[in-house]
Amino acid sequence: MLSKARIKYIKSLQIKKYRKQEQRFLAEGEKCVAEVLKSDFVVDWLVVTEAFAERHTTLLHQFKGEVMVVKPQQLSGLGELKTNESALAVVRMKPNEPLQVKPDKWLLVLDDIRDPGNLGTLLRIADWYGVGGIVASNDTAELYNGKVIQATMGSFTRVRVWYTALSEFLAGVKVPVLGAFLRGEDVHGFRSPTGGLLVIGNESSGISDDVARYVTHRVTIPRYGGAESLNAAVAAAVLLDNLVRWR
Amino acid sequence: MLSKARIKYIKSLQIKKYRKQEQRFLAEGEKCVAEVLKSDFVVDWLVVTEAFAERHTTLLHQFKGEVMVVKPQQLSGLGELKTNESALAVVRMKPNEPLQVKPDKWLLVLDDIRDPGNLGTLLRIADWYGVGGIVASNDTAELYNGKVIQATMGSFTRVRVWYTALSEFLAGVKVPVLGAFLRGEDVHGFRSPTGGLLVIGNESSGISDDVARYVTHRVTIPRYGGAESLNAAVAAAVLLDNLVRWR
Repeated sequence: MLSKARIKYIKSLQIKKYRKQEQRFLAEGEKCVAEVLKSDFVVDWLVVTEAFAERHTTLLHQFKGEVMVVKPQQLSGLGELKTNESALAVVRMKPNEPLQVKPDKWLLVLDDIRDPGNLGTLLRIADWYGVGGIVASNDTAELYNGKVIQATMGSFTRVRVWYTALSEFLAGVKVPVLGAFLRGEDVHGFRSPTGGLLVIGNESSGISDDVARYVTHRVTIPRYGGAESLNAAVAAAVLLDNLVRWR
Repeated sequence: MLSKARIKYIKSLQIKKYRKQEQRFLAEGEKCVAEVLKSDFVVDWLVVTEAFAERHTTLLHQFKGEVMVVKPQQLSGLGELKTNESALAVVRMKPNEPLQVKPDKWLLVLDDIRDPGNLGTLLRIADWYGVGGIVASNDTAELYNGKVIQATMGSFTRVRVWYTALSEFLAGVKVPVLGAFLRGEDVHGFRSPTGGLLVIGNESSGISDDVARYVTHRVTIPRYGGAESLNAAVAAAVLLDNLVRWR
């Protein structure tokens, strides 16, 4: 059984203000909840269906917090997913800590990625390509937004995100800083360094002038057809796919 | 002035059933409307703001249909965009005609892409990489859905989509058929043919067995980190980026 207070608490965590105040967020759905239970995130309590509990006996056995079992219909009404027949977790946020910059590791730098779906997809891509973390401008979408967490498909448990003022951060780094521009070096022929920073610009305005002045290598994804651009996450994946192969 | 009948007609075209019945769809926003006016699509009539009319005098001068000028607030209330300060067009669908398969050209084959945003992004990617067209399974999202048209960023005017039964179509082709699988040849080292078909699988279940038996080349995007998969559109872009460079 789920008390009215718990239901109200879950609903409150769908709003940014209360997430910030409580320093908690929601992970929803089979994959996200299973991954967060296996990770170093602290889970306060869980709401699960019987089916989820049966599929994940070991994970639930190891879990020290409270587990509430509800019917799928009730679970679907609680969170932001249209239907949820598995689980929902109340999870503690991690502190916003600086990431280490190393010359043999790639970090993504996000210059105002506003769309939560794009941010989530970027975390998933970073995770696929073994990127060490994401440095996000303060105007980038909030990591703990439900749409972001969902779109990461569990990758938020492996890829750390640090929010900071980008120009101050970039002024202090000594590694290569790559950025995609219309007239840069063809990334297919680009002999990539073994690591550094890859800057991804805002969905409509691209890389801002403030950030562009720190870019040491301008690269371009060659175009073979009529589209004016690729979307931010797609471009990031294509660029990383070209960069990491040199390691 | 916009009559009540016109407003009702625009609203009806937001529903698949009426789009099919009328063989018309909506293009919304600055970029989509400008691109559709430059294309070989037939536009029946336009609703524009004064600002759009001033920015596109030549396009509107060449347009033979009716143009209605409204205030931005009225336009925003009409379509599916949250805000639209530019234009909306009522456009005729094109017939669902077979695409020609050529050995020196790539076609994308979509095996049940269900999400409209993914389909739109795939058209944009196909357009960027100069792909000759898209062959979509009958269960793939509808091309003329407003979310698809929007996500294409105008690329629907350049990339043709043909809906058909995939196994019948694939049984008749003689070109290479590539598909992404977990244990395929590393696409970074793959010496690509100059063209053929690239199959993209469904968002959750991948390439179906029915379609997989026609795949002649299994390829894999190498993974360097922890994510289990990339999303369908991201994978398509990375694969095309690796294939087209051999031309």
